Amino acid sequence: MSDPIDFYFDLSSPYGYLASTRIEELAARYGRTVRWRPMLLGVVFKMNGCAPLTEVPLKGQYSVHDFYRTARLHGIPYKHPEKFPLSVQLASRAMLWLEETHGERKAIEFAQVVYRAYFVEGEDITDPDILAALAEGLGVDGDVMIEEANTPAIKDRFRAEVAAAMERGVFGSPFVIVDGEPFWGFDRFYQIEALLKNGRI
Amino acid sequence: MSDPIDFYFDLSSPYGYLASTRIEELAARYGRTVRWRPMLLGVVFKMNGCAPLTEVPLKGQYSVHDFYRTARLHGIPYKHPEKFPLSVQLASRAMLWLEETHGERKAIEFAQVVYRAYFVEGEDITDPDILAALAEGLGVDGDVMIEEANTPAIKDRFRAEVAAAMERGVFGSPFVIVDGEPFWGFDRFYQIEALLKNGRI
Repeated sequence: MSDPIDFYFDLSSPYGYLASTRIEELAARYGRTVRWRPMLLGVVFKMNGCAPLTEVPLKGQYSVHDFYRTARLHGIPYKHPEKFPLSVQLASRAMLWLEETHGERKAIEFAQVVYRAYFVEGEDITDPDILAALAEGLGVDGDVMIEEANTPAIKDRFRAEVAAAMERGVFGSPFVIVDGEPFWGFDRFYQIEALLKNGRI
Repeated sequence: MSDPIDFYFDLSSPYGYLASTRIEELAARYGRTVRWRPMLLGVVFKMNGCAPLTEVPLKGQYSVHDFYRTARLHGIPYKHPEKFPLSVQLASRAMLWLEETHGERKAIEFAQVVYRAYFVEGEDITDPDILAALAEGLGVDGDVMIEEANTPAIKDRFRAEVAAAMERGVFGSPFVIVDGEPFWGFDRFYQIEALLKNGRI
């Protein structure tokens, strides 16, 4: 059995969202599973001096255009959020708590509904009530989840996870590692597929 | 007759080089011609606070890996230059002078041999003697070219061209504009092809 694919993403990253809608089917086509790892672009930007794409002169306007165009070309629904980017600390920690208590599958489903709430429905995914309601939709007690996602233990764990990601060289979203080979960007999915198909790249 | 495709590139940009080896055949497949427009990433970076990819922590190491991998996947020769990035002011102005005096085709050939000299042969394309020799290989008087590429008139013209590019929203290399639609990156060539094929995107 081959190792799982590591899929790193920031829950407020448009290309992370696009990738999240395709990574499972891509992996499954080659008999692989996916380990979903939330990370924080803000922490990376503090380290390397970069800024969110949409805040860079010239690049910003183009980027939003490209989010829509790329989504359309791949048949993925997309509506750029009015409030962007957002802090996704709470949502990410909630995902980690779900993983610990309800298993990996439930945590992935939660990440998927959070992404959809933000990039399709335009909901404010910093709002604990909205996150709780999304959890309820998956059969999880939303109030408990929010309470647990705010414990120091989970905060420490998420901090350690983000640091570990950066130590592995993760600096963007999406960032995928397959058999030790790193890929940054939804636009590298054709390269991931080449590796999965041929066993080398 | 459709409008030409505008192809903006920095002569020390790895992805610009990769794109330069494919843009003509892509355009030709859809009955289009290409206008090659040299630009300077350094001027953009001064404006938007970005840095060369290879100088950003974590991103730097990944980028060089990705240059090689992407080149290999597309069957393009690549050898990352030891001295990188370089100032390509002189080479770019030489290209503009060639365009004025020897025609567009000769200028494009020059850009292609300069790219190859830098990204395949590892030559120092800031060196006037090397640029002159590359011109001689195309049947051009290299010494005259270097002299002419240093006149205030050509310097002014190149400065104006770079400013005009940025006014059109160009902020990266390669940057392609097709029928008013902007595309940043060699990894957007599949989207350019979709536009050329379907007449819309």
